[in-house]
Order: sequence, then structure tokens, then C-alpha cells
Amino acid sequence: MKANLTIILIAVLGLFITSCKETTSSEPSASPEQVFTIAIHGGAGAMPKGTYTPEQEAAFHAKLKEAAQLGYEMLSRGDSAVDVVQAVICMLEDSPLFNAGKGSVFTKEGKIQMDAAIMNGRTLDCGSVNNIQRVQNPIKVARMVMDSSKYIMFSGEGAEQFAQLNNIPQADASYFYTQHQYERWKGMKDSTEGKYIRYVDSVMALQNIPTVLNNIEEKFGTVGCVVKDKYGNLAAGTSTGGLMNKKFNRIGDSPIIGAGTYASNNTCAISCTGTGEDFIKTVAAKTVADLMEFKGLTLEAATNELIHVRFKEIKGDGGLIAIDKNGNVSFQYNSDGMFRAKVDDKGNITTYIYNE
Amino acid sequence: MKANLTIILIAVLGLFITSCKETTSSEPSASPEQVFTIAIHGGAGAMPKGTYTPEQEAAFHAKLKEAAQLGYEMLSRGDSAVDVVQAVICMLEDSPLFNAGKGSVFTKEGKIQMDAAIMNGRTLDCGSVNNIQRVQNPIKVARMVMDSSKYIMFSGEGAEQFAQLNNIPQADASYFYTQHQYERWKGMKDSTEGKYIRYVDSVMALQNIPTVLNNIEEKFGTVGCVVKDKYGNLAAGTSTGGLMNKKFNRIGDSPIIGAGTYASNNTCAISCTGTGEDFIKTVAAKTVADLMEFKGLTLEAATNELIHVRFKEIKGDGGLIAIDKNGNVSFQYNSDGMFRAKVDDKGNITTYIYNE
Repeated sequence: MKANLTIILIAVLGLFITSCKETTSSEPSASPEQVFTIAIHGGAGAMPKGTYTPEQEAAFHAKLKEAAQLGYEMLSRGDSAVDVVQAVICMLEDSPLFNAGKGSVFTKEGKIQMDAAIMNGRTLDCGSVNNIQRVQNPIKVARMVMDSSKYIMFSGEGAEQFAQLNNIPQADASYFYTQHQYERWKGMKDSTEGKYIRYVDSVMALQNIPTVLNNIEEKFGTVGCVVKDKYGNLAAGTSTGGLMNKKFNRIGDSPIIGAGTYASNNTCAISCTGTGEDFIKTVAAKTVADLMEFKGLTLEAATNELIHVRFKEIKGDGGLIAIDKNGNVSFQYNSDGMFRAKVDDKGNITTYIYNE
Repeated sequence: MKANLTIILIAVLGLFITSCKETTSSEPSASPEQVFTIAIHGGAGAMPKGTYTPEQEAAFHAKLKEAAQLGYEMLSRGDSAVDVVQAVICMLEDSPLFNAGKGSVFTKEGKIQMDAAIMNGRTLDCGSVNNIQRVQNPIKVARMVMDSSKYIMFSGEGAEQFAQLNNIPQADASYFYTQHQYERWKGMKDSTEGKYIRYVDSVMALQNIPTVLNNIEEKFGTVGCVVKDKYGNLAAGTSTGGLMNKKFNRIGDSPIIGAGTYASNNTCAISCTGTGEDFIKTVAAKTVADLMEFKGLTLEAATNELIHVRFKEIKGDGGLIAIDKNGNVSFQYNSDGMFRAKVDDKGNITTYIYNE
């Protein structure tokens, strides 16, 4: 009898250990199962309601929903927050709809230069790359920096070399090239400054969706994802192609821990989109986390303070998505809209484009 | 009589405007003259008392004093916090005693790759460069990015190109080359990781100061400066050659706003030195500022919380210098020592190396 009980106990323990191993490489804590959730953004911008045709809107809604669905399914089966952030951002990077990965804009020299960062809220570990050119998924390189090096930030050719050594899939210029984007870049490459530009025209052309001449002047196509998993762990990630026509290897807020990307289990996970410099000088994501930790603000009050009070003072521009340790989600932006998606506690996905 | 009075008034007003113009390019506010002060660091490290010979100690003390003297004189005559930070860091970059500018260490590929950042606490404007190779004073490029571009961070070749266009003095490899450093780099270039190394041996050899075989294993030679000027404005700057033998264009905390460098007139100005990754993942400098702003801690309590509480949790390593809006100075480190200098309200300069 005692021997049988021992065997059963060992078997149960074995199953438990195996199941833990299967779920994730990020060692979730063993606390009781918690409410899990996910939020996604595909950039904020000057895009009042009616900016897009119904076909364009449908394409954005569908991709945002597909990404949220993927993340929610992974969370349901017990994947870690970090794994989910990476997978969801990969999907958005692979879509030509957003200014990240495949959809990245051209620099002044006609190149692709992408930035990305990921952060694990349980350990504060993070990884970040900038000015990366020949990789399909910059977020995978950021993750690899976090997991497989003692460091956090690698730049340019160095980051590419690290990616190659770690067998991360490469992509040549043709992977990113589209005739339509090229023509638009040619049209503005002699201007002195980089600009967030009318991006949707080109990507819609890619998909043979009818394009209208619209009045979008600024659109930040950065993508981001924040997650709370069933172990109570938070994670955040952001990926971007940066400014169209940028030069001097300009780096924005996306790959800067504390500015465009931040996660801590003590407070929240955040991903930002907008004029990068505004998020860098306010150390935006960490400001939100610290308003919660040191001042006791709720997630909603803290994100509101940043985007509608602090950003007013510095004439800042953009938005963010955030999830706190209790699973509350906050969308905050001072632009006309922000591509975004969230999932409620019953698994229902809602996607949004405009201020609605 | 009335006409004479008017003429005198106009003359006085004219003098006042001229004097304002002369003092600085950073538009100090017109508030009454305040207590001004400055603090400097030349890196923290594992260097218990007795690590250096009296001759070595004297060389460090002399350079720290010279830099503090320069900064204090500039402040006395009304220069702005940002101008003082730049001038003091230039002096430290020009010295081979520190791992910044001329004294920068070699990367794994035998190159020099320097990072620097500067921040204006009055406006939150900031500038930052990383992986810059052919410039004598990286802090000048960071300042130029802040003043003459819409952006904050430029990287690698792009940052160099921006520096050239703005006529910032270049330096070729021979400016940085020393036989002794080269030999030491050759000795470790086949190791897999970058390392903070026994740095003083090489720089002392440069100056023909007798070198002893000492037990320093880790020394972060980064330099930094924090200032409060007589207009009540704060500024901070940091400059570094990074890790000896680093690869993949690794970026540390020095050029990351909120991590290694931060300034806000609302709270304090901070410059950090140590294992960069520890300062990035804790968003160290902004954490100190937010502990003051959101939790009401004093400067000393906030820096203590970061270096002796938070850093204990993550096994973090290093130190920082900080000045608050009232002119209080804080030195905080968990290493055996930190090269540092401060000036009291009578203009007396004190320099330190060890835990003393």
C-alpha cells in the first residue's frame, strides 16, 4: 500500500515536472494559476475616423485579431509571458501592414534599419537591438541577446553578427523591398529630416487593396505587445522600422528599456508608440511604473498622467499599451487613433483603430 | 534729468542683456542667483585601499581636482550647467587616466568604440551617441545632437557622419593607440567575453609612473559630471570607452537616458558607473529621480535605496554621483571605491579614490 502510494506520488511529481518543462523556457513561478491577458498595438497616429476605407480597416482588424488570438491561445495552454510577446511580435513583424520587420520603411540611404526590445517582468532581464538590417524578426534577436548573452544592447553590424552566430533567419534587401515604398522613399529622400509618413498607401498596395489618397500625415507603425501569463508574470516587447527617411543611425524609444519598453512584476508591462524622442526624454515607460510603485497610482491613472499631463508639458506625441500585475489593461494615446487589440477574461477579442 | 535717467536705465538694461548672452547658450532662467556646485566621477571599481601606489593616487587626485576646478570656475562666472558638464567631461576624455575619449579601451576587434550622453535638467533635452570611433570628444557629439538635431540618439557610423558634418574634431586610431594597451588587448582578445580589467597599469605606464602588479580585477573607468548652476538649473553627462574586449557593438548604460545619465530640475542630476546592464535593467538614474519626486525621499535616501537595496536584489555592481535641486551632493557605490570629486559652498575641492 505504502509502496503503491509512493509510486503514484512519484508519477504525479514526474508529470508535474514534465508539464513545467513543456510549457516554457522562462521558468514561470509555481504560484496558483492567475487571470492571464494580452494587449497589442500596431502604432498610433494622426488618423481621424474615416481615414481608412472599409477594406483597409478590415485588413488591420483582421491582422490585429489574428495576433491577439495567437497570444491568447498560447497563454491558455500555459506558455510564458516572454514566449507570447515574442510570438505575437513575430507575427506583426511578418505582416507588411506595420512598420516593423517586413513592413519596415526605408532610411535616407534606402536601407532598412530596425530596432526591437523585449523585457521579462519576473527577472528584469531584457534584450535590445538597434539598426539591424538583414534579419526577418528583430524581436528574435532581442530575445536571444536576453537569453544567450551577459549583455542587453547590441547595435548595427554587431547585432547582425550575433544573430548570424545564433542562426536567426536572415533576410536580404528583396525581402523588404516593394516598388511602391521605393517610389515614395525616392520622392522624399532629398528632404532634410526623417518623417512619420502616410504609410498605409504602400502597404495596402502590396495586398492589392484599393488605396485612397487620404490625409494621414503622421503614422507611427511600431508594433508592441504586453502580456500577463497564468503564472502571474509580465512581459513587454516593441519592434519598429523607425522613421521613414531617417539618417545618422537614429535610435528611437522602442529599443530603450524604460523609454519605449518596460516590464516588472511589481507594477506593469508597457510598450509605447509615437515620437520616440518624447518617450526617451520622459523615460516614459519607467515613469508609469514608478507612478504606480512609488505614488500608489492605478495603471489607468499612471498612464493618463504620462500621456495627458506630462506629454502636454513637453508637447509629446503618441500612445502606449499597458497591463498591470492584476491583469488590468490600459490604452492611452493623445493622437487620433491607435491600432490596438485586447482580450477580455472570457477570451473575447476586441480590436480598435480610431478613438472609439 | 528724466532723459539722463532713461539713458542710464537703457544702458543698464543693455548691459544685463549682453551679460545674459555672454554667459551661456542654454538660456538659464532669470531666478535669483543660487548655490551652485559640481560633482565628478572617474569610475567605480574593485579597488580596496592600498590598490594604488602613492604616485598613482597622486595622478588621479590631481586630474580630478583639475576638472573640478575648471567646472567650479565656470560656474562662478555664470556658465550654464550644460556648458560646464561638457567642458569637464572633455577634460576627463582628454586624459589617458580614464576609460573615455583618449584613454578608451580596445574592443575585441581592436577598435575604439565610445558612448556618451548629456542631459539638460531644465528642458529635459538630451543627446546621446554610441559606438563612435573617430572623434576626440564623444560628449561634444552628444551635445551637438541635443542642440542641432530634432533627435536624441545617433549610433556608430551615423553618429560619426553627423559629427563630421558639424565640424567636431576627428581623431584617427593613432590618437587612441598605446603599445601597452595593445599588448594587454592581444593577451585577452581570444577570450569569449568582454571584461572590466586592470586598467590602471596601462595608463600609468603612459605617464611613466611606476606600475605595481596589483589585485584590481574590475575597474569601470567611465567618467561623469553632474552640476547645479547659479540659475538653479541641473545637468548631467557621462562618457565611456565601455568594456575592454567588447563585441557585437555592445551598448552599456552611459548613453541611455534614464539608465546611466539623467537630469531634471524637478529632482536631481545623475551619472552612473559600473556594470552597465545592472543600471539598464533597473533604469537606475530615473528610479532615483522618481523615488524623490513620487515618494518624497531625499537625494541621499534615494541613491541609497538604489545602490544598497535594489542593487542587492539583482546583484548589481557600481556607483553613481548625484546633485539635487537644492545643491546637495550624493556619492553612492557598492564597490571598494570610486574616483570622485566635489566642491563645498566655499569652493573647497575634495577628491577621493577609496571608501573613505
